[in-house]
Amino acid sequence: MLVIKIGGSVFGEIEKLAGDAMGFAGSGLIIVHGGAAETTRIAEKMGKQQRFITSASGFRSRYTDRETMEIFEMVVAGKINKEIVAALRKKGIDALGLCGADGGLLRATKKIMKAVDEGGKEKIIRDDYTGKIESVNTELLRVLINNGYVPVVAPIALSSEFELLNTDGDRAAAMIARSVGAEKLIMLTDVDGYCANFPNDLLREIRAGDLPAHIQKATGGMKRKLLAAKEAVEGGVREAVIANGKKEKPITNALAGEGTVVRMML
Amino acid sequence: MLVIKIGGSVFGEIEKLAGDAMGFAGSGLIIVHGGAAETTRIAEKMGKQQRFITSASGFRSRYTDRETMEIFEMVVAGKINKEIVAALRKKGIDALGLCGADGGLLRATKKIMKAVDEGGKEKIIRDDYTGKIESVNTELLRVLINNGYVPVVAPIALSSEFELLNTDGDRAAAMIARSVGAEKLIMLTDVDGYCANFPNDLLREIRAGDLPAHIQKATGGMKRKLLAAKEAVEGGVREAVIANGKKEKPITNALAGEGTVVRMML
Repeated sequence: MLVIKIGGSVFGEIEKLAGDAMGFAGSGLIIVHGGAAETTRIAEKMGKQQRFITSASGFRSRYTDRETMEIFEMVVAGKINKEIVAALRKKGIDALGLCGADGGLLRATKKIMKAVDEGGKEKIIRDDYTGKIESVNTELLRVLINNGYVPVVAPIALSSEFELLNTDGDRAAAMIARSVGAEKLIMLTDVDGYCANFPNDLLREIRAGDLPAHIQKATGGMKRKLLAAKEAVEGGVREAVIANGKKEKPITNALAGEGTVVRMML
Repeated sequence: MLVIKIGGSVFGEIEKLAGDAMGFAGSGLIIVHGGAAETTRIAEKMGKQQRFITSASGFRSRYTDRETMEIFEMVVAGKINKEIVAALRKKGIDALGLCGADGGLLRATKKIMKAVDEGGKEKIIRDDYTGKIESVNTELLRVLINNGYVPVVAPIALSSEFELLNTDGDRAAAMIARSVGAEKLIMLTDVDGYCANFPNDLLREIRAGDLPAHIQKATGGMKRKLLAAKEAVEGGVREAVIANGKKEKPITNALAGEGTVVRMML
C-alpha cells in the first residue's frame, strides 16, 4: 500500500503526476491532497482576509473561523478534490474523491489553538475549526481499494460533535499511511526534499531519531512535513519520502530514493 | 431502494429531514442534492454575475462558463455536500458524499445550449459546461450501500473528455433512481407539490400520460421536477413524489402520499 500526499504547489503538474500514478494504482494507492494556497486565494476574492497563527513551537496554522471553514470546505473538498479526480480519471485511474467527513473516514478533536502575541505571551484562540486526527476508518478505504477505486482524500475531518474541521494534509496523509499499514508515504512538494540549510545541504536520508532536531530547525511547510514523516515512521510506515512533485515521474523517482527519505533507522 | 432529492430551499431544515431519514437508511437509501441558489449567492460574492438561459421549450438553465463551473464545484461538491453529510452523520446515518465524477458515478455528454434572443431566434451558447447524464455506475452505489453507507450525491458529472459538468439535481436523482431500480423517488422542495394553477389546485396524483401537458404549463423549478418525474417513472420507478421538505417527517409523509404523486397509471 502506498500513500501519496500532493501539495498545492504541484497541482499545476497534476497530469504528469497522474500519468506516473497509473503504474501504482493496481497495488493499493491512496492520494491525499492539500489546498492552503488556493483557499487563501479564493477567501481573498470573497473579501475574507486570512490570518495565520504561529504556535510557541513555531508551527504556522490558518486561523479557521466559521466563515473560513466554509471556504476551506468549498475549495478543498469541492474544487481541488474534484479536479484531481478528473485529472486522474483522464489517465485511466478509477479515482474517487472523499473528505474525511465522508463515511467517518477521519475523526478528529478540535485543537486548542494558541498564538503568541507580540509580548511573547501565549493566548488561546477561540472559534477555531482546526482538528487533530484521532482515527481513520480503514475499513472504508479497504472496501474502496478492494473494489478497484483509488481514494482521493481532502483533509477535512469530523469532530465528535459532528463539526467539519480543517486538518493538515501532510499529517492526515501520515495518519492514513500508518492506519492502513502502508509501506511508504510520499509527500510531493515543490522542492527536492529537506535542506538542512535551505536552499543548501539537501539531506538524502534522515533517521527518525534525528527528526526532532530537524523539526525544530525547519520552517514553514517543511516543518510540518518532517513532523508528518515522524508520525508516519513511528507508526510503522517503513519510509516517508519528501520529494519534488514538479519533476518527471515524481512517484517513480521518490520510490527510487530521490528526495529526502525518512526511516526509523538506516 | 429509495432515492431522495433535497432541494436547496430545504437545506435549512436538514436536521429535521435527517432525523426522518434515519428510519429508511437501512433499506437502501440514496440522497441527491441541489445547490443552485447557494451557487448564485457565492458567485455574486466573488464578483461573478450569473446568467440564466431559457430554452425554446421554456427550461431555464444556468449559463455555466469555466469560472462558474469552478464555483459550482466548490459550492455543490464542497460546502453543500459536506454539510449535508455532517448533518446526516449527526443523526446516526453513515453518510458518504460524492459527486458524479467520483468513481465514474455519473457520466454525461455536454449539452448544446441554445438560448432564445430578443427577436425570438435561437442561438447556440459556446463555452458552456452543462451536461446531460447518460449513465450511472450502479455497481459503485451497490458497493457503498452493501457496506452500510448512505451515498449523498452532488449533481456534477464527468464527460467523455473528462470535463466536470453541471447537471440538474432533479434529473440526476431521476437517472439514479431508474438505474438502480429504485421503487420510489421523492423530490423535496419548499411547496406542497405541483399546483395546476399555482398556488392553487394542488394535484395529488398525476398519470405519466398527462405529464407532457403539465410540463409544458409549469414554470421554473417545477417544470424540471415534472420532467424528472417523467424520466423516473418511464424508467421503471413505481412512484415519483414531489413533496414539501419543510414540514415535519417529510419522507414519511411523502411515502404516505402527501404531495404530488406521479405514476405510470393510477
